[in-house]
Amino acid sequence: MNNEGLLIVISGPSGAGKGTICNNLVKKNKNIEISISATTRPPRRGEEDGKSYYFIGEKEFIDKIEQNEFLEWARVYGNYYGTLKKPVLEKLKEGKDVILEIDIQGAVQIKNKFPDGVFVFILPPSIEELKKRIETRATETKKEMIERISAAYDEIKKAFHYDYIVVNNCVEKATSKLQAIITAEKCKLSRNKHLLNIGGRF
Amino acid sequence: MNNEGLLIVISGPSGAGKGTICNNLVKKNKNIEISISATTRPPRRGEEDGKSYYFIGEKEFIDKIEQNEFLEWARVYGNYYGTLKKPVLEKLKEGKDVILEIDIQGAVQIKNKFPDGVFVFILPPSIEELKKRIETRATETKKEMIERISAAYDEIKKAFHYDYIVVNNCVEKATSKLQAIITAEKCKLSRNKHLLNIGGRF
Repeated sequence: MNNEGLLIVISGPSGAGKGTICNNLVKKNKNIEISISATTRPPRRGEEDGKSYYFIGEKEFIDKIEQNEFLEWARVYGNYYGTLKKPVLEKLKEGKDVILEIDIQGAVQIKNKFPDGVFVFILPPSIEELKKRIETRATETKKEMIERISAAYDEIKKAFHYDYIVVNNCVEKATSKLQAIITAEKCKLSRNKHLLNIGGRF
Repeated sequence: MNNEGLLIVISGPSGAGKGTICNNLVKKNKNIEISISATTRPPRRGEEDGKSYYFIGEKEFIDKIEQNEFLEWARVYGNYYGTLKKPVLEKLKEGKDVILEIDIQGAVQIKNKFPDGVFVFILPPSIEELKKRIETRATETKKEMIERISAAYDEIKKAFHYDYIVVNNCVEKATSKLQAIITAEKCKLSRNKHLLNIGGRF
């Protein structure tokens, strides 16, 4: 019997509300953990090392890439982001479900290594709402904001690689949908074939 | 945008608890309806025409087969069972989700006609529990009981055609799992590609 946890990859444009949904889910379901990414970008106000991200230097990051310590990594807006392999694989073995909140570049790398992963794309309710959310964040320059909006368009166009789409009209509803996806995935035939082996089970 | 309801096919051996789970789900979710099958078998105690089944004569049933009025039909233990096409297609168009509680023979016919259908197999927690449940029903002769237990084995072996497996350890949990499967299926990329068409949507 397979008791391994699920690897859940969550992507979506900035401002779609990925972080809020994931944090909400983790509060309600103690078996889920959010993987903490490593990055070379400087911390934003309020971000703590080892909590929001592992903030590491560029040399250290590149060393880890060379030592094949990343499950996925990408360079975005001139900074490196990546997911360290070891902690994720350990949690999955313990039976914990692990959420990776990563971009499409990273998701493609994961899909090649973990075809059993569950790939969910979070959409904002409308492009107007998306623009508003990115602008309200106000931690970025005007140029960065325009880049993010344009990147959001490009990302949405590439979301065809994902298994599920969740529209974030309402955080509670979107969280319930994400939980339902996890529950349903655990019922999939491909994860439960051992139950049909009558000789083995009964 | 596709507002059609989901067609959900539920199968599983006698005594797995399909009926209890489906009735429980329908009580909680007003958008779901259980399709009523037609049959030529005589009513069991407490079964009402038009509620449990449409009880019809063999000649009428065979006429309807010839007029292609069935979505699926099968002959089981010498009786005919079938799902009439018209009421199901009407409900789906209205946006209702429709549950068909049918056997594997019927499910295979549906899968050919509705590749978008969702196929769920309900398993009893153990073969001992299954035997107990079939024996407790006590509306059948000893010979019929033995036939049902043997048929249950055969059905479980054929459940590889289904999309999901739900083990009925507890009716409430199994009902929640079935609800989660329906919610997740509605988030599947294949049912939501229109949302990624930025030109069309935003």
